[in-house]
Amino acid sequence: MIDQFMRLAIEEARQGWQEGGIPIGSVLVREGKVVAKGRNKRVQENNPILHGEMDCLHNAGRVGSYRNTILYSTLMPCYMCAGTVVQFKIPMVVVGESRTFNGARQLMEAHGVNVIDLDLAECVAMMEAFIREKPELWNEDIMEL
Amino acid sequence: MIDQFMRLAIEEARQGWQEGGIPIGSVLVREGKVVAKGRNKRVQENNPILHGEMDCLHNAGRVGSYRNTILYSTLMPCYMCAGTVVQFKIPMVVVGESRTFNGARQLMEAHGVNVIDLDLAECVAMMEAFIREKPELWNEDIMEL
Repeated sequence: MIDQFMRLAIEEARQGWQEGGIPIGSVLVREGKVVAKGRNKRVQENNPILHGEMDCLHNAGRVGSYRNTILYSTLMPCYMCAGTVVQFKIPMVVVGESRTFNGARQLMEAHGVNVIDLDLAECVAMMEAFIREKPELWNEDIMEL
Repeated sequence: MIDQFMRLAIEEARQGWQEGGIPIGSVLVREGKVVAKGRNKRVQENNPILHGEMDCLHNAGRVGSYRNTILYSTLMPCYMCAGTVVQFKIPMVVVGESRTFNGARQLMEAHGVNVIDLDLAECVAMMEAFIREKPELWNEDIMEL
């Protein structure tokens, strides 16, 4: 079963895909309520720093402390996004999968972040289909250039 | 002596300060030419992810590989910006100082990034004056909340 917040993150990812972008979505939650949503906008905004998680934190704006927040992402965060989780002191990250991209789980865990990988078939299938469709775009996003 | 690129980064920082923002500036250089400049825009754009380095990489847009680039920053990068340097495979980072903020030098060096700290009195003085002026804003930016 996929909880309501991961469902929202997947919807963000699918919206990004429809826009011609990279299908990775993210949701920031505080005490059971959505603070902000976001999706990878490298293509849509010609912006390499707007991974799904970064767009979500951008959309949240200046919210003060992140101590009671949970960051959801359809994919394991990369070093940029993991470093941001550490810097922002976000205590918990829930991800859809890490099969198509290893990311930087260890960096987060080394700083006490609780990382939960739901290993969802739906998220894996979405990323696998996208990577088959646009391998060059995916390699650009993970800097395999 | 302060080289031309660090001079530009300091100018960006001072412009941000005049705007009521946090005085940290950054410049991305490739083969001796400026690719983009940026400055911390937390205040100006209500955006917690736009540290100086992130704004600079945002302004650069999709430039492909960063293999021949150098990132200048007036202050040692935090975990967000250091994680981004690692993810983007930027091989060299030149910083103005690290006395007022330790940052995440070790994360970058652990991934093979060449980090040079110029330890410039001008950069230290700028940050010390800003922190005295607006300690709450500085604590918000480094998430000491």
